[in-house]
Amino acid sequence: MEKEISQAVIRRMPRYYRYLGDLLDEGVERISSNELSSRMNVTASQIRQDLNNFGGFGQQGYGYNVKFLYEEIGKILGLNQRHNIIVVGAGNLGQALANYVKFEKLGFVIIGLFDVNPLLKGRNVRGIEIRMLDEMDDFLEEHEVDIAALTMPKEKADSIARKLVDMGVHAIWNFAHVDLELKDENVVVENVHLSDSLMQLSYNIVKNQTIKKK
Amino acid sequence: MEKEISQAVIRRMPRYYRYLGDLLDEGVERISSNELSSRMNVTASQIRQDLNNFGGFGQQGYGYNVKFLYEEIGKILGLNQRHNIIVVGAGNLGQALANYVKFEKLGFVIIGLFDVNPLLKGRNVRGIEIRMLDEMDDFLEEHEVDIAALTMPKEKADSIARKLVDMGVHAIWNFAHVDLELKDENVVVENVHLSDSLMQLSYNIVKNQTIKKK
Repeated sequence: MEKEISQAVIRRMPRYYRYLGDLLDEGVERISSNELSSRMNVTASQIRQDLNNFGGFGQQGYGYNVKFLYEEIGKILGLNQRHNIIVVGAGNLGQALANYVKFEKLGFVIIGLFDVNPLLKGRNVRGIEIRMLDEMDDFLEEHEVDIAALTMPKEKADSIARKLVDMGVHAIWNFAHVDLELKDENVVVENVHLSDSLMQLSYNIVKNQTIKKK
Repeated sequence: MEKEISQAVIRRMPRYYRYLGDLLDEGVERISSNELSSRMNVTASQIRQDLNNFGGFGQQGYGYNVKFLYEEIGKILGLNQRHNIIVVGAGNLGQALANYVKFEKLGFVIIGLFDVNPLLKGRNVRGIEIRMLDEMDDFLEEHEVDIAALTMPKEKADSIARKLVDMGVHAIWNFAHVDLELKDENVVVENVHLSDSLMQLSYNIVKNQTIKKK
C-alpha cells in the first residue's frame, strides 16, 4: 500500500465488517451508503471517505454490493489468511479467549495455552491443551505462531513479549496492564486495556450527571 | 463542563492516569511535558493540548506536579467516586472481570454476578456470589448499581440492557458482540469488541508483511 492509512480509519473497519456480515446473514444483497449510514449511526460521507482510502467499492446509483464489500474489507483486514494464536496466561481471561468460537470463524485459531501454574498442566479448554511456560520454546519451534495473546500479570509481560519476539512471533495482543512498546518495527502490538475502557465509561457517567444537574 | 471535549481526548486520559500513577510509585514529584512526552511516546504539544481542555495544570518552567495532575485527572475520570458494578454473564470472561483486583483500586467495585446456568448458582468469585438472572430485579431494588457489565451472548444483550436501563442502571459496559445503541441520552454505553481489536492487529500484520516484501 502506497498511502499510509490512519489508525482511526482502521479502527472503524472491523465495525463495517461486522455490520456487513449481519446484512449478509439477513440476505441483503446491496445497500446504499445512506442506508448503511443510518444503520451504523455514522454519516454517509464518513463511510464514503473511509472506503475511498481503499479504492471506494461503491457504484453511483447502485450503492454497495454487500457480499463484495464484506469480502474486500475482510481482505484488507487480513481475514483471508489463517492466523495461529497462542495465549500466554491460562487464567480466567486466557480461558475466556480460548472459548470464543467467534475468533475461529474469523480465521484466528488458538493452538496453544501456556501458564506457570502446575495445577493447570494438562488440562484443556475446548480441546486446547494447557502447557507449562517452559514448554513454550519447543512449541514455538514446532508450530507456526502468528500472534501471542498476553494475559499474564503486568510484571512479566515485557520479558515474555521480548522472548516471543526473539523466537519469531511478530504480533502481540496484549491484555497486561502495561503499554508494550517493543522497539522493533517488524513487531505489531495491540494493547487492550480494560481499565482504560472502564475509566472512559466513568468519565461519561460523570459528564451525564453534570448535564442533568443543570 | 461548558465545552464538549472530544472522545479522542477522553480516550487518552486513562493512559495519562496510568503513567502518572507509575511515576508516583517511582517517587517522582514533578515532570516536564518533554519528559512525560518521551516516556509516553506522544508529542509534548499533544500533552499540552490534551490537558488544556481541562484547564492546563502545568506551570511554565516547573512542568507538572505529578501527584496533583494524577489526582486532577482522576477527578476528571470520575475516579474520586465509588462505582458499583454488576456483571451479567458469569462465564470465563465475567469471572475474569470479577477477579481483576485492579478495578477495585480504581473505585470500581463488583458487587454481584449473574448467570442463567444453574450449575453456577451459589458459587462465588473472590467472595462475590453468583446469583441467577431471575434474582436480578430484587438485587437492583436493594442495591445501588452504577454500571452493568454484559458478558453474555450477543442475542440476549439487547433485551437485558433495556431491562437494566428500565431498572435504573445508567451505564453499560458491553462485551457482547453487538453495538448496543440505546436511544436514551441518560444512558452511557462503552462497547468492548475483542474481535475488532484482533482484526486491527491482523490489519497491521498484513501491512507489515507487505512492507517487508518491497
